[in-house]
Amino acid sequence: MSVLGIVSEYNPFHNGHKYHLEQSKVLCGSDYVVCVMSGNFIQRGEPAVIDKWARAEMALLSGVDLVIELPVVYAMSSAEFFAYGAVKILDSIGITDFICFGSEAGSLDELNNIADILNSEPEKYKSSLKGFLSEGLSFPAARENALNIYLKAAGHKSDNPGELIKGSNNILAIEYLKALKKSGSKIKPQTIKRIANTYSSDKLEGTISSATAIRSHILSMEEMKKNRTSKASDLQVLMDSLADSLPPLCFSILQREFKAGRGPVFSADFESSVLSALRRMNAEEISKLPYIAEGLENRIKSAADISGSLNSLIENVSTKRYTRTRIQRCLFSILTGLKNKEFLEFNLWGGPQYIRILGFNNKGRQLLSEINKYASLPVIIKTADFKNSCNPLLSKMLDIESASTDQYVLAYSGQDNKKSGQEYTRNIVFLC
Amino acid sequence: MSVLGIVSEYNPFHNGHKYHLEQSKVLCGSDYVVCVMSGNFIQRGEPAVIDKWARAEMALLSGVDLVIELPVVYAMSSAEFFAYGAVKILDSIGITDFICFGSEAGSLDELNNIADILNSEPEKYKSSLKGFLSEGLSFPAARENALNIYLKAAGHKSDNPGELIKGSNNILAIEYLKALKKSGSKIKPQTIKRIANTYSSDKLEGTISSATAIRSHILSMEEMKKNRTSKASDLQVLMDSLADSLPPLCFSILQREFKAGRGPVFSADFESSVLSALRRMNAEEISKLPYIAEGLENRIKSAADISGSLNSLIENVSTKRYTRTRIQRCLFSILTGLKNKEFLEFNLWGGPQYIRILGFNNKGRQLLSEINKYASLPVIIKTADFKNSCNPLLSKMLDIESASTDQYVLAYSGQDNKKSGQEYTRNIVFLC
Repeated sequence: MSVLGIVSEYNPFHNGHKYHLEQSKVLCGSDYVVCVMSGNFIQRGEPAVIDKWARAEMALLSGVDLVIELPVVYAMSSAEFFAYGAVKILDSIGITDFICFGSEAGSLDELNNIADILNSEPEKYKSSLKGFLSEGLSFPAARENALNIYLKAAGHKSDNPGELIKGSNNILAIEYLKALKKSGSKIKPQTIKRIANTYSSDKLEGTISSATAIRSHILSMEEMKKNRTSKASDLQVLMDSLADSLPPLCFSILQREFKAGRGPVFSADFESSVLSALRRMNAEEISKLPYIAEGLENRIKSAADISGSLNSLIENVSTKRYTRTRIQRCLFSILTGLKNKEFLEFNLWGGPQYIRILGFNNKGRQLLSEINKYASLPVIIKTADFKNSCNPLLSKMLDIESASTDQYVLAYSGQDNKKSGQEYTRNIVFLC
Repeated sequence: MSVLGIVSEYNPFHNGHKYHLEQSKVLCGSDYVVCVMSGNFIQRGEPAVIDKWARAEMALLSGVDLVIELPVVYAMSSAEFFAYGAVKILDSIGITDFICFGSEAGSLDELNNIADILNSEPEKYKSSLKGFLSEGLSFPAARENALNIYLKAAGHKSDNPGELIKGSNNILAIEYLKALKKSGSKIKPQTIKRIANTYSSDKLEGTISSATAIRSHILSMEEMKKNRTSKASDLQVLMDSLADSLPPLCFSILQREFKAGRGPVFSADFESSVLSALRRMNAEEISKLPYIAEGLENRIKSAADISGSLNSLIENVSTKRYTRTRIQRCLFSILTGLKNKEFLEFNLWGGPQYIRILGFNNKGRQLLSEINKYASLPVIIKTADFKNSCNPLLSKMLDIESASTDQYVLAYSGQDNKKSGQEYTRNIVFLC
């Protein structure tokens, strides 16, 4: 039994994910796949386009055997903490042999090299990083420059060896490696080359498109429907090209969910709530959110006063130093209720407090019985059983998850869909 | 110089208001009219359909000479506190000779009689009220029954003399009288008969319709526009009948405001914000809102969990005892930020803390110079001058007003319209 661990948002599951999954299985020679998946809010600080139960179902229909939730505390977090949370979970289940992630680099050597430097922070690297930061460079730019200098001094042949850390997949890959090393995990890392420019392309292209492109395609379709000005045939063309980008079963789930009023969910659905809440908060209250530092609370407060939309608010606050995604994570933490104090406490006490199963198939059921033997954290099948756990950190983490879902479902249509408490009432996904 | 005081919401100003205003002037023989008007939120616990500056302009164009704001603390309050706030302001300006209000009764005798009973609470009345309440009757029903028994015992000829207190205008009229008596005010009350059934009719009828009917008419027009399914000619018919219900100049203001993206504003515009905020509040936080008593916080919390809309939330919470309007006032206080503790403190320290002028014409300018001589409260022409008043209660009341406007404007369209701080930047309305 060889178990492969995958970390993904599957937002939504598309043909590119399927390709990555199949390649990873071959590369690692694994016959079982566990996926650690983001829940209802994702790393960029946004809601997922459809909920975690539907996305878990998509994954199970496409080659994943067991889906574990990455708690929103880590799912909607920086690359470092996202990877930290995911690796911690894959390690805690006690049965993961491999982790395979996409990267622009496509091979581990360079990524490992950089991960080591970032983990050990040699004096030379540190002082040059400090220098670039004091020159006013953004953190990513300063880090790239410092890596360039350090790596070239260490004999690297390339002109820009630090450039590697620009790729968004490389960044996550390096964070996985850092976390694996720091945790002393026995999980073996593997990587598969991803073509960088398709990730951020915002148009559908053939059968392999990025999740970003798929989501913005869905958004356009929604706007066309709302305006009621488009011809049915135009909408059909868009629907057909969407269908081309997803495995057929996943596309059916997407359609089923939308028809039932559960999505598509976008940031804009939370615009009023976030703007209204911000206007009622003072700078001190804002400063208690996670990812706030050095007076950012005042920037947010002032921007909230003059901004009439979420987008302009984010535009008004973000700078080189405070990226859009960081601001978005702050803002959506107003909804999830996560405070910085709690975030630090979770990190201090080992990160994820539980292994929460979202779904499994028959092979996943076998995995589950193995996990029950070897897991170093409580395994949650039925969340309601853990509602009043005697571990206050576990309770708190689950409370935040539930609160985030209570907010997420407000973007649905239909009275029943919007009910709160779904974290405790929705069934685990079992595909036999 | 004879000064008539009027209290109204003018939401929006319509032909019925104009009729009432003209009749009142004749009845009181007054040549000057001061109106105490609700701001951006009204007594029913809802936003006004257009903002207070536009509504003040309507009033000034229709026979009112000076408009003073009823602070939202009292404007969005029970009949008792609404009347208390308004009478306090009319009294505090030191120049009001008359107050003239509509009533179903149409004459003061019976209203005065009931006001006296409610103010003095004779033992016999009190014990029978208590008895009816303990039988499970709602407060209005118990009060009506207790008044019936008391008045008949006192020799009243009618079968149901307490029935008078059923009329919504009578209720307010009695509260004005109670407040006048309690404050020892020298303002002379007058009343004009209103026909009860037109007040709550929800269809436009000829040239005199209720504000409720006008607002629901505007709402239907908005829904037709949104659906984009209606013919332009259908919309024109609706627009024409709306035009029939308002003085032409007021109708123009309504059109101007809507065209500028400032309204129409409805409760539904705050649905997401209120539902999202309630889900983030616990019962203890809810219990700190005004008008919450005896476990109502738990009812609201449970209802928020199962309700997908503001309307169903209110339906789920309201009972005979907790009326819809009371629940609405609680819910919208989440947005204004008013807490019960502050509400009690304002009441303890004389109610309204200032005389805030919203607008005036040339005659109003003369009134203003008189008010400046005789007023017993600070007169605010420029709110910004009072932003850091050394009276903490005045500051707090103005803060709440500003916070409520910061929320109100989020229902507008357009970046500039939505800016916060308008309480301090919008100009006073001056019509020369």
